[in-house]
Amino acid sequence: MRLAIVGATGAVGHEFLRVLENSPLQFSELRLYASPRSAGSKLTFKGKEITVEVMPEGPIAADVILASAGGSISKTYAPVWVEGGAVVIDNSSAFRYDADVPLVVPEINGDAALKHKGIIANPNCTTAIAAVAVYPLHQRFKVKRMIVSTYQATSGAGAKGMDELLHETRRYFDGETVGNQVFAHPIPFNLIPHIDSFQDNGYTKEEMKVVWETHKIFGDDSFKVSCTAVRIPTLRAHSEAITLELEKPATPEEAREILSKAPGVQLVDDPGNKVYPMPLNASGKYDVEVGRIRASLVFDGGLELFVSGDQLLKGAALNAVQIAEYLQAKGALPSGEVAAG
Amino acid sequence: MRLAIVGATGAVGHEFLRVLENSPLQFSELRLYASPRSAGSKLTFKGKEITVEVMPEGPIAADVILASAGGSISKTYAPVWVEGGAVVIDNSSAFRYDADVPLVVPEINGDAALKHKGIIANPNCTTAIAAVAVYPLHQRFKVKRMIVSTYQATSGAGAKGMDELLHETRRYFDGETVGNQVFAHPIPFNLIPHIDSFQDNGYTKEEMKVVWETHKIFGDDSFKVSCTAVRIPTLRAHSEAITLELEKPATPEEAREILSKAPGVQLVDDPGNKVYPMPLNASGKYDVEVGRIRASLVFDGGLELFVSGDQLLKGAALNAVQIAEYLQAKGALPSGEVAAG
Repeated sequence: MRLAIVGATGAVGHEFLRVLENSPLQFSELRLYASPRSAGSKLTFKGKEITVEVMPEGPIAADVILASAGGSISKTYAPVWVEGGAVVIDNSSAFRYDADVPLVVPEINGDAALKHKGIIANPNCTTAIAAVAVYPLHQRFKVKRMIVSTYQATSGAGAKGMDELLHETRRYFDGETVGNQVFAHPIPFNLIPHIDSFQDNGYTKEEMKVVWETHKIFGDDSFKVSCTAVRIPTLRAHSEAITLELEKPATPEEAREILSKAPGVQLVDDPGNKVYPMPLNASGKYDVEVGRIRASLVFDGGLELFVSGDQLLKGAALNAVQIAEYLQAKGALPSGEVAAG
Repeated sequence: MRLAIVGATGAVGHEFLRVLENSPLQFSELRLYASPRSAGSKLTFKGKEITVEVMPEGPIAADVILASAGGSISKTYAPVWVEGGAVVIDNSSAFRYDADVPLVVPEINGDAALKHKGIIANPNCTTAIAAVAVYPLHQRFKVKRMIVSTYQATSGAGAKGMDELLHETRRYFDGETVGNQVFAHPIPFNLIPHIDSFQDNGYTKEEMKVVWETHKIFGDDSFKVSCTAVRIPTLRAHSEAITLELEKPATPEEAREILSKAPGVQLVDDPGNKVYPMPLNASGKYDVEVGRIRASLVFDGGLELFVSGDQLLKGAALNAVQIAEYLQAKGALPSGEVAAG
């Protein structure tokens, strides 16, 4: 199987390589593509250097393409790549809401990936992180209402987001004026309740993605979701405070029992010993940390919880690779020995 | 009228002096007290230096004492000061839940202050900031459920909290190990979903304060409140994402109309122009910024909003001084010319 990464030099691209180094995914060729500006640079995979190529205007000779080069690139080229015979696992929001494009978190709806017509969408990072924690509870207790407040890291805006946080924080300490280019306002020692563009209903697109995508991934839009998405001055790993109204009453003990066995979840819930989800620990980790599980004070039989998950991993690169692994395990992709191109 | 500040050298103490410089409160004497460790230092009030005195073991010769030296000092000494003839406006949580101690936000329940028996409690900072925004909506639409997620600044732990954020962030840039003494974990580029101690129900005391105190300040415990309290790496000004279920359906336009006239509130709600509440702008400001007002997606006729308010001002010093101003305006305190001791 021939594998290609488009957008290889970005923050997610970097994580693709690290995740693939430890993935059971079998492939015989790995090619890396980026814009002309970034092409020519060399990236390391399993100790070998791979030169990044300029993304071609036409088809790419690959069986699977992991795309993370932004919505407009995907919108234009993904159909061309599919035409050329590739399966595209797309990290952008370009196709997520198309009825014939599966939106997949393998732990939840891996089977949906098998019904693809060439493109499989990788969910929004915030949604993916909440979904792995909430879905096992939804299966058992059925969610009626889900209220999410996010604490999102600057990595959500890619490497340049993290760079801006660090660079501008240094400027703060140097007594210089703190500015902003990536974010709408200066981010050091601040927060910004504005991620992606505002919609007519007053919610940002980021907030609506959580609504739309949770419904699509769960295959169930019978429950209500609301979200407030806030950028905070952290580097990577998004956190979320989640309040759940449930159809069947749940206890925190039952929730802990379920989540302790849930795939993709690490139960981190021992507050007496100062153990709860935090970006400091969730960064670089595959599993989403879930903790602060307690009986809701507003919904009888409901739950409140706090999650932290690496935005670049489960929120992006890891989930996309897991989709490819799932397809290959189900015999829906060619297999092949690992050999860096 | 003789005024005294106990805990004058702390972060809130510092704000007391700045707020009093611009307050209509009339007083003839201002004396500053602190622990023996901090006594002897000089603080400036209206251009004059005042030497901080050691807090005496017995009564303090003052008509009003603004106390912000922590719960155990207040617990022990406030009754002594009251015995000595003073009215104590206490910033700690020591007396907030006593049935005969009014808990006051002047814009909401100023009249309750008039019924004091010597001690008036100043609310928890997070609660005060949410309360000024939510109460005008409660009056008109009646809250049924209120779900709060907080984004709390390091100033909530006093000057030493802010110092730790700055100091440890500098260490991060210097390549040194980032540590923590004030907070439970390192705070630079991290968040900590743990403020104050954990209760048996899994909520922190900080979270329960929002529940208990909102009910007491509103004089109404018929609605349900829940809170997730999270420390984030900001310096001052707490922010909160608030979801409201309401008895009478509200529109965002009605809410904006009400909040544009609400005392203590500044409507900051023009997302199209990137205008919404943020710590960067709310710090140092008396009014609580309220914005991101939108129809709730989980409660028909409900609202979602985002607030940012200076934790050291409306969340502490300002509110306490406003209580004294209220008492004086109602003739419940002696008046007197302003003259720094």
